[in-house]
Formats: sequence, structure tokens, C-alpha cells
Amino acid sequence: MSIPDRMKAAVLFGSNDLRVVQTVVPKPEKEEVLVKVKACAICGTDPEIIEHGWPNCPPFGSYIPGHEFSGEVVALGEGVDEFNIGDRVVAEPHKGCGRCINCIRGLYTTCLNYGNLEKGHRHYGFTVNGGYAEYVAIHINCLHKLPDNVSFEEGTIVTAAGTALYGMERIGWVQPGEIVAVIGPGPIGLMAVQLSKVFGASKVILIGTRNSRLSVGLKMGADVLINIKEEDLYKRINELTNGYGVDLAIEASGSTDGPEQAVKITRKSGRISFIGIYKNMVKMDLNRAVQYNIQMAGGKAEGMWCIERILPLLAQGKIDVKPLITHKFSLDDINEAVKTFKERIGGAIKVVVIP
Amino acid sequence: MSIPDRMKAAVLFGSNDLRVVQTVVPKPEKEEVLVKVKACAICGTDPEIIEHGWPNCPPFGSYIPGHEFSGEVVALGEGVDEFNIGDRVVAEPHKGCGRCINCIRGLYTTCLNYGNLEKGHRHYGFTVNGGYAEYVAIHINCLHKLPDNVSFEEGTIVTAAGTALYGMERIGWVQPGEIVAVIGPGPIGLMAVQLSKVFGASKVILIGTRNSRLSVGLKMGADVLINIKEEDLYKRINELTNGYGVDLAIEASGSTDGPEQAVKITRKSGRISFIGIYKNMVKMDLNRAVQYNIQMAGGKAEGMWCIERILPLLAQGKIDVKPLITHKFSLDDINEAVKTFKERIGGAIKVVVIP
Amino acid sequence: MSIPDRMKAAVLFGSNDLRVVQTVVPKPEKEEVLVKVKACAICGTDPEIIEHGWPNCPPFGSYIPGHEFSGEVVALGEGVDEFNIGDRVVAEPHKGCGRCINCIRGLYTTCLNYGNLEKGHRHYGFTVNGGYAEYVAIHINCLHKLPDNVSFEEGTIVTAAGTALYGMERIGWVQPGEIVAVIGPGPIGLMAVQLSKVFGASKVILIGTRNSRLSVGLKMGADVLINIKEEDLYKRINELTNGYGVDLAIEASGSTDGPEQAVKITRKSGRISFIGIYKNMVKMDLNRAVQYNIQMAGGKAEGMWCIERILPLLAQGKIDVKPLITHKFSLDDINEAVKTFKERIGGAIKVVVIP
Amino acid sequence: MSIPDRMKAAVLFGSNDLRVVQTVVPKPEKEEVLVKVKACAICGTDPEIIEHGWPNCPPFGSYIPGHEFSGEVVALGEGVDEFNIGDRVVAEPHKGCGRCINCIRGLYTTCLNYGNLEKGHRHYGFTVNGGYAEYVAIHINCLHKLPDNVSFEEGTIVTAAGTALYGMERIGWVQPGEIVAVIGPGPIGLMAVQLSKVFGASKVILIGTRNSRLSVGLKMGADVLINIKEEDLYKRINELTNGYGVDLAIEASGSTDGPEQAVKITRKSGRISFIGIYKNMVKMDLNRAVQYNIQMAGGKAEGMWCIERILPLLAQGKIDVKPLITHKFSLDDINEAVKTFKERIGGAIKVVVIP
Repeated sequence: MSIPDRMKAAVLFGSNDLRVVQTVVPKPEKEEVLVKVKACAICGTDPEIIEHGWPNCPPFGSYIPGHEFSGEVVALGEGVDEFNIGDRVVAEPHKGCGRCINCIRGLYTTCLNYGNLEKGHRHYGFTVNGGYAEYVAIHINCLHKLPDNVSFEEGTIVTAAGTALYGMERIGWVQPGEIVAVIGPGPIGLMAVQLSKVFGASKVILIGTRNSRLSVGLKMGADVLINIKEEDLYKRINELTNGYGVDLAIEASGSTDGPEQAVKITRKSGRISFIGIYKNMVKMDLNRAVQYNIQMAGGKAEGMWCIERILPLLAQGKIDVKPLITHKFSLDDINEAVKTFKERIGGAIKVVVIP
Repeated sequence: MSIPDRMKAAVLFGSNDLRVVQTVVPKPEKEEVLVKVKACAICGTDPEIIEHGWPNCPPFGSYIPGHEFSGEVVALGEGVDEFNIGDRVVAEPHKGCGRCINCIRGLYTTCLNYGNLEKGHRHYGFTVNGGYAEYVAIHINCLHKLPDNVSFEEGTIVTAAGTALYGMERIGWVQPGEIVAVIGPGPIGLMAVQLSKVFGASKVILIGTRNSRLSVGLKMGADVLINIKEEDLYKRINELTNGYGVDLAIEASGSTDGPEQAVKITRKSGRISFIGIYKNMVKMDLNRAVQYNIQMAGGKAEGMWCIERILPLLAQGKIDVKPLITHKFSLDDINEAVKTFKERIGGAIKVVVIP
Repeated sequence: MSIPDRMKAAVLFGSNDLRVVQTVVPKPEKEEVLVKVKACAICGTDPEIIEHGWPNCPPFGSYIPGHEFSGEVVALGEGVDEFNIGDRVVAEPHKGCGRCINCIRGLYTTCLNYGNLEKGHRHYGFTVNGGYAEYVAIHINCLHKLPDNVSFEEGTIVTAAGTALYGMERIGWVQPGEIVAVIGPGPIGLMAVQLSKVFGASKVILIGTRNSRLSVGLKMGADVLINIKEEDLYKRINELTNGYGVDLAIEASGSTDGPEQAVKITRKSGRISFIGIYKNMVKMDLNRAVQYNIQMAGGKAEGMWCIERILPLLAQGKIDVKPLITHKFSLDDINEAVKTFKERIGGAIKVVVIP
Repeated sequence: MSIPDRMKAAVLFGSNDLRVVQTVVPKPEKEEVLVKVKACAICGTDPEIIEHGWPNCPPFGSYIPGHEFSGEVVALGEGVDEFNIGDRVVAEPHKGCGRCINCIRGLYTTCLNYGNLEKGHRHYGFTVNGGYAEYVAIHINCLHKLPDNVSFEEGTIVTAAGTALYGMERIGWVQPGEIVAVIGPGPIGLMAVQLSKVFGASKVILIGTRNSRLSVGLKMGADVLINIKEEDLYKRINELTNGYGVDLAIEASGSTDGPEQAVKITRKSGRISFIGIYKNMVKMDLNRAVQYNIQMAGGKAEGMWCIERILPLLAQGKIDVKPLITHKFSLDDINEAVKTFKERIGGAIKVVVIP
């Protein structure tokens, strides 16, 4: 495959000024490959990036966002034999520096050299260029082989799934037979619903405020839906759990009230995974967490290479991400894509951009 | 329901002298209930018990074995409100003393007062009477409610499933996407196959020596079967794992060679669960386990109330134990039942006795 | 030893109406012993109990509080051979029911039958009578043998130590070489300081608001003291940790601001143990806990029989609780003792009552 | 400091043909520094290497062994700011590739690209040149800063300490108050004794066959010594543990019988850390490990950057490695040093070579 010198990409020129322009195709360095992007999903952080940029991001006028992408390997950097040209791949955005104590101990999503390019850290789509482009040069640690029977569009959803999964790993996994409550039916929460069922939860309760989103939860395997605008959350949970509360609560809403709800629905000696993005300070009845002996964990992104755990399940059809992919746009229409996602036009959940 | 004074039971009178006789119906004490037994499966230890008795077992002439049973609650001892008359239940055999350090810390299958009845320990079918009878008086800690849509026969299999599951808990569960090898297609191994698939293993490899048993593994969800009499185990595992070995090996064969096979097929930093009963000293290349940084755990019976984890999955049809139930006999024919099980007549896997 | 029929005890007759009166000496039931109390420390909950009572406490006029006590075994209930008459012992207050799923799994401080005496739960000094008396009848699960070289007064401090220790167990222990910050130099916080040093912390930072208490921390082994009224907490922590934050924060202050301070001083992928009693809703920058991948745990009381872990260290002199014992009173003067403790008269930390 | 072009080094020319010769001073590459070696200890693997070489070692005639060394940083490779010229440092030998799944997850001592230099793996003194030389070029991930008050000779012992410590981490650490048995009073076993005491073990029992070595254990903090040639191991352990067995056994002897001894002295639901190098197949009563619900772990080298945990404790004097350093030789006399170590001449434990 011949690789052109120039490519189309969505470049951020300033606040809310994302333009599709021609720019240079990057060259893969040592331990990198060049990926021809086939699909890139919009993440909740993208609209924020487009509005505000990101700490240590490339300069406006050259910064290409986008971090949930899949594609095909078209060139190999020096020393790479993990991939071959033609391999179908999906990306994860975090590449640790490999030399700080967190990276050495496997905690690369909390690399102590975040944003330090010289030390080898990369956050694709954030501190280095990402996937709203025809090509991306990316480190092999950030790539996973996409099974043959999984489409590129589906591949873009594994980052969301990975965030849900790493949140589970941090709190001791979903354990067999557990009753799990997921707060927040966004893409990550919906994946948490499905993964919980796949891993042997006996009952998965999805909690939210909009029926349209909650109903997608049914497709993802939720056993019970609770719309807290229509029902008394605590009364319902009591009924569903013999008055004890859930074994595991997964707070994925990022709302100001979600964490307090999580604390109040969790059983004595239960567990809570916090994976939302909280814009405000959060108020909680922490005393209950102490008296109830509750374990809690914040989970940062798709750590521990957990995407490698998800892909075989996707290939086997145990996980189905298609219900989340509601819209597709061409890269030329990225601003419309972002608007559709941000304003949830037409019930948008995940919006995928095709370069 | 009127409860008679006398009942039919299989009583052990001496070595290999198990007789179905009339005996007294027991009375439930404090924290106990009386269960009318509906089905009791034969476990691999039963033929040994029938031949040799068991340390601290009731005296010959009054000893009723049988520890994998289900039934219906027909009378409540003092202070019991956890169960109602008419409840359908399954038993687990171990009741810890509740007062040694292991029991206090939740490790009741390794109670330090094993066999000490005065301190409250009970091992139903072993140190106190069990389920080869019309009635059993049993402590509430050893009972779990059987879901309505699960038959009594199916209920007898949860003890085997529980042993497989506790072996998983002791070694950090089956983790999403893992490649799991199960050595030994006996009832516990076959349950381990099914549970591994249910909990998100990406590939389950069942290893054994007889094709008839291995083929049952297919029904339980095994992705690959390896008959080590017909194939080179290590070559096959290499092919199936890109040369790395499996993430988790579950040794359930109890054979003298199984543990060494487990060590040799497990990947660097992988895990091994040992849940077989080993009659002989075992030879292993322990150096490989050290150099490969392998974690291992022996798992004693169905600890941590793990049966409570299995029952909802059984009710939901995620687990199906029916392929294991190959034979049923009336209690009157228990000696034939035991012979069928022991000699694997007609491909016997689990043989259930109906009082 | 002859046991009298009547004894002196501090009985709660109503709100803030604690009177030393003559009452009946209790009889030890099955699995209980009678302890002649030698010392009983005042805990932070006692003044609250004296003011408000406690849910499900014995009726006013018969309720004897006090739950941090030591003494001598003077009579054995039925079936007890774990103790002999004359044994020196310390108590822990929580006795689980032994029959709920939490107790069966070893999580007895979160017993689901809390306060249900018929099911076997006991919370000495709370839901049943405790140690402000000459005698207590108490279940053997709540007793530990006091080493010969540890005084009864010292023995009363192990409950506080146990709460600190269980908080550590819930969050993965103090790991070798870690930098630990303890917020709140109350008795539990001060014990957390000492235990952290004993278990191999490289640096222990004690954080508080009063220099008198902080200075006791030095005796307990703190390497650094931070008075947040005099110094900028975050600046100091940055200096002490190369800008990374502490590995483990132990929040023992129960203050409204403590938890937020804990979140802000903890390093990426660090851990927080919450063991304070929070009277108010707590506001936290939970987003930082997520982005920093922080694990957190509430710890309920001295679970997992952790007092058994502390006593040998006390006997060996590795732990020294004497700096915490600032005052002793006779039982007759219990109201003065409580006032001294509550108002921290004379720098009171732990106040011990001698019957 | 001016760096010469040539240096003195012990080069392996063939089986048992180690010669001190002049050779080229290496140049530090990217992410490496040049260390002027101040001391290098002989490890148990060194005599084997000198006799047999090592898989994928540098060619005879250019291969410099030695992997337990300390020294001073004298030059920085590209991009290094973690160290400054003049820093005192100690080395750990394993540098993972950073790109296999084990390295990405923090398990670099079990790197899947072991010996593959092109992919970035290094095993200093094994697959690349090590510390029996005046200078070593080494990756920064393999270096730790030596506290000012710790001598270079002491620094060479942290690799042995790290192996003991990582073996503890793999099995859930030494937990407060535990009774620990260490089998094998070699350098790693002796460090395990000391570390166990430092981390709060209540009793440490050292088990071996030679009184001279056992007596060193006393200096390292052992509470009890058992010479199994003079005493009945199992009887003694029973006496020391009220008949229950030890909480944690650390098998560091590498003997053929050690593992079986470990299994037989460990309590129900106890743990075993295997960190010996076993030349022979090992025979164990694995059935006991299953029936006793015992967790076991092989521990590969000084993983998880655990040396970083040890150094502050060494600086604080909580750990004292000096009793292990019995002999020092100049690099010119390395063959005599190796002979002294191998034949344990003069009670040699650790023998340090000074370039």
C-alpha cells in the first residue's frame, strides 16, 4: 500500500474551531506503527477538548484530537514485529513513560510523567495527535489486534468498555452471583451493565433519569431499570435486595448526586467503583461507608491492558456493542458529528466518524 | 405435614456394609431445621467412606453417609426464621464451629475444631449423619434456598459446583478474557469448565484421558478438548496459546501427574487452582513455578458460602448441571447406585439417589 | 474465687444520668465466661451513649455501657475450654450472629442481624451490658488472652489499636517502605501512627490541629508532624513526597474536612483508609480520586479478630500504648472520668476506669 | 570525572575460565547511565554461570557476569534526568522489554521477551554485561538511589533482600502478628527472617541444617532456630504453634525436601512462599495443601521495584545487612572470591568483590 505524504485531518485551531484540513502524514518512529484510521468514536471529553484544548496538547493549528479509533496497520516503525502490515487494530490512548514507579508497576494510566513527551509518555488525542485523521503514528503498546469478525466501528467502543472493565478490576472484579447496580446509562455505564452480566452477576440494576437511555440498558442485559425521576430509588433497591442493598455499585454518571446514591444503595461490606467524571465537589454520607465497611475505588481509564480481555469476548459474541453505535458521519462532517453527540440529537449515544 | 417417628435410611454397619434400614427420625435442635430429603448425589468420597468409615464418624450401625442433598423443610428448630416450612433447599456439608480463628475469619471449611461436635462443628454425612435417608436435621448455615425452577436432582450438583467455584475464589477468580485449562473431566472439573465460560474466560481447554468424559465437556462449554493419550499435551497447549501457556490451570483430576502438567502448561505469572484429591505424593517441577512466578492455591470444599453465588445463575439458566446427572436410583438400591458410580457403569458421572 | 450475687456498676438511667449502683452479677451462658473487670477505657462513643442511649440498648435503669475492657476470667459457661479460670483477658465488643452471610464470610462487624439478641448478635456496652461494672458475662469470641507482661490498663487500648489495624487490612495493609499520612491525632489515629511504623512504613506523617496532641504522635513514632493551623498542608506534603503525595492516607479525624484533605494528599494509584466517625455530610473532590486511581475503604471497628494480631506485638514491646493512657479513675468517679475525657481536661487522651 | 576508554573487568572466556582483563568501557545509550562500580556481591547463580554460561549470554571472551552491584553514576545517556553525576546507586538486574503483556502489567521479572535485546529486555550479568568490572552501562529502570548512610558493600545485598520481599508480596505480605517459618538460612532466607520481624511477625522460626548459619539467623532477628538434623521439625513446630502450624512458610532452601517440609508445617488456610532454586523435581503431599486450603506462590526475583521499598528501611537502620557480608576481595582476586563463596570457606555468606 502506498502511503501519501499528505492526509485529511480534523485540526483544532482554537476554541471550538475544529477544521478539516490537509496536513502531513506522520512517520512511525521506533516501536510505533502507522495506522490508517477506519473509524474514530467521539468521547465525552472530546467536546471539552474542542472548547478548551487540553493541558500540554499540541499547538492550536496542528492539534488533531480523537482517541477512540480503529484502523489498519500500513507501515512499521523500527524494531516492530508484534504487528504486520494489513493487521486490523484498535487503539487505547494511554502510553506510559515506562520509567516511573507507576509505569514500572503496571499502573501506566497514572504515569508520573504524564504529558512529558521526552520521557516517552503519550496520550493520543490529548497530548499528541490522535484519530480524527486518515493516519496516526502510534506506539505498539497502545494497539490491540481486532478480531476478524469485529467491525472497525465496533472496535471504537472498546475504550469505553475498557474503562468500565478497569473500574471493575480496581474493586475486585464483578464476583459470581453478585447484585450489581450501575448508575448512569452513558456509554461506559451501559458497557458496565453488559460486562457485569457476562461475568456472572445474578442481577444488574440500571439507574438513570431518562427512559430513552435506560431502555438501551435492556438491550445490554439489564434485569431492572430504575428511573429515579419516576421512582423512589432507595425503596426500589430495598425491594430488590431484601433490604440489604447491592453487592457492587458502579457510579458512572459523573453527576453530583450519583456518589451519594451509590453509598446509600450499597450493602454492608459491599463495594463501589467510581468511574464518572465529576465536575463538581461531591457530597457523600461517608460515615455510612465507614459503618458499612464499604470498599471504594476510583478507576482511571482503561488500565492494565484490559482491552486485551475484552476483544476475545467481542469476537465470540458474548459482548455486543452495536446498540451503542447510533450515528456515523464522515470526517468531513465532524463538527456536525460532535454537535449530534453533544446535544444527543436523535438519541445519540456513540457517534462514529469515518475518515 | 406430619412427621413420622421412623424413617428409611442407608446405614453403614461396617466396611462395605451399607444397609437400608428403619431408624429414628432426628429432631432439629436450636438453629437447625428438619429436611425431608428429595435427592442425594454420590460423591467421590462416598465409596471411600463406605469402605473405610471416616475419622470421628458416628458409630457403625448408626452412621448415615451422604452429603450432597436437597429437599424440603418440614420442621423448624428453636429460633429459626430464616426458613419456612415448605421451603425447597440444598445443603452444603461443612458447618464450622463458629468459635475458632478460622471460622471467625470466614474460613469454616478449615475449622480448627473439625469433628468436635461439642464445639459446634458438623460435617454432614461425615462426622454426623447425612442425606442417604428420608430426613436430615441440619444447621441453617448449611442450607440455601433452591430456586423454584431448579429441580431437587439438579440441586444435588451444587456442592460439586461450589468446590470448583471456591477453588476459583482462592486463586483470584476467573478473570475476564483468560485462557483456562481444566485438568480432569470429573464432575468438579466439568463444573469448572462451565463456570469458567460463564465468568468470561475467552477459551476453556479441557484435558483428560477418556473421550467419553471429554465429550461431556463440550456440552459444558469447553472450547477445546485434549486427550493426553492421543495428543502431545504440551505441543497442543503451545499451539493454543501462542507458546505462552494458559492464564489459569485448574487441576481437578487428583491424578499423580496432573499437578506437574498444570505447572508445565501455565504461563509466566499465571495461576493454578488445585482442587483434586491426591492419593499419592505428587512430583512437580517446582522450580518452574518459581521462575515463572506462578501463584497456586489449594481449595478446600465449597467455602465462603459460595453456593449462594451459584444458585441464581442456575435459576437463570446460565449454568446447566443436567448433563452431569446420568443415573438415578431409589434409596433402596443405594448399593447398586454406589457400584454404578464407582465403576462408572454406563458412563456414570453423577448418580443421584432418591429416598 | 467466690462470686458475689451483687456488684457495683455504672447504670444509665436516662440522658446523661449515669449512676453507680448495686445490681445483679450476670451468669455466663453457653459459650460465655464471666469476667471480673479490672479496667475499662472510655471510648469516643461513650459520651454519646450516655447522652442519647443507643439503638436497641438495654432499658434505661439496667443498661451498663463500656466496651473497652480487660479483666480476669472467674467462671466458665457451658462448653467452654478455650479459657481457664484465672486467665487474664481483653474484650472486643462485636459478636456476630454467626448465621448471616456476612458473619459466615468473616465480616462480623457488619453482621446483618445487628442488635438481634435472639439470633446471637451481641454488641457489648451497646446492645447488651458492658464493662463499667465489676463483672461482665461475655461470649468467648469476644475475648483474647492478655500476655502476662501487659497490664490490664494497657489491655483496654487494644480496641482502639484494632480499629486502626482493621482499617489497614481493608485497604491492603501498610506496605513496606510506604509513606503514610495519618489525619487526626486521637487515640485511633495515634495507634495508626505507631502501627504504621511497626509494619515498615518509611515515613509517617501525623496531621492535626493541636500541638499538644501532635506531640504525643512523636512518642508513637511519627517522623513528621503537620499542624494545619500553622502550616500549609499541601505545600508540606509536596515537600515531603517529592511532589507525588503519600502512598497511604489514614483519615481518623472524623472531621468534615479530613476526607477532602486525604484525597488531596494521596499519590496517583495510592490508597485511603477512612476510619473516622463523620457527623456531617462530607464534601470531596471525588474526581481527583478517579483521575488518580485511588483505592479507598471504610473500616468498621476491630474486625477479622485483628486484636489477636496486636497482642503479641504488645507483649514484645514493639507497640507501646502507655503514652495514650493519661488518666485513671475509680468506677465510683465515672462521671468525672467521662467529663475529663469529653472535655480533654489535663490533655486527656484515653481515660481508664477501674472498678 | 574523566572516564577512561579501557577498564578492568572479569571476563568469562569459557567454562570456569574467568579472567581479569582490560576491555572497553561501555557507553550509556538512551535512558541509560554509566556506573562506576564500587562493589559487586557474588550470587548463588554466579558459580553456575561461570561453569555453564547462561542462555543468550554475550559470547565467551566478552561476557562480564555480576549482577548485585552498587556504584556511582559517572555519565548520563540521552534523556536521563532521573539521576545526576555523582549519585550513589544500587542495581537490580531485570529490565523488562516494556512492551509485552507482562511488562505492561508490571510483571517485568517474567518478561515474555526475556533475552531479546532488540526488544529492550536486559538481564544484567546474564544476557548483557554486569558488575564484575570497573564500569557498567545500565538502564535507569534498574537503578535505585543508595541512601547516604548506606555503604556500597551494604548496597550489594539489596538484591537478595528484594527477592525475599517480592516473595512476600506475591503471597500477600507478612501480615501483622503472624508466625513465620523460614526454611533455608542462605542469604535470601536470612533476609526473609529480618524482613518478617520488621513487618510485624510475632515469631520467626528459622529452619536449617547447619548451626553456623542458623546462628547468623539470631543476629537477623529469628526468635527460634530449628536444626532439623538435631531436632524433630514437626514436633517442634507443633510445640511452637499450639499444634496448628505456622501462618506463613517461606521456602528459601532450594532443597529437594524443603517444599514438603513447608507444606507440612503450614496451618489450615495458611500460606507458602517458594523462593528457592530447585535443581530436582520436588515431591510434595499436595493433598495436604488442598485439604488445608493453603495458598502458595512462586516468586521470581526482585520484582515490582521492591528494592525501592527496602532502601529507606536500610537507611533508617531497621534492616541491617552487615551480618551477611563475611568476605571482601579485590576484583583481581575474583576467582578466589568465587571459590570462597562456593565452598563457604571461613563461613562465607555473602562475598563482595571490589573493583
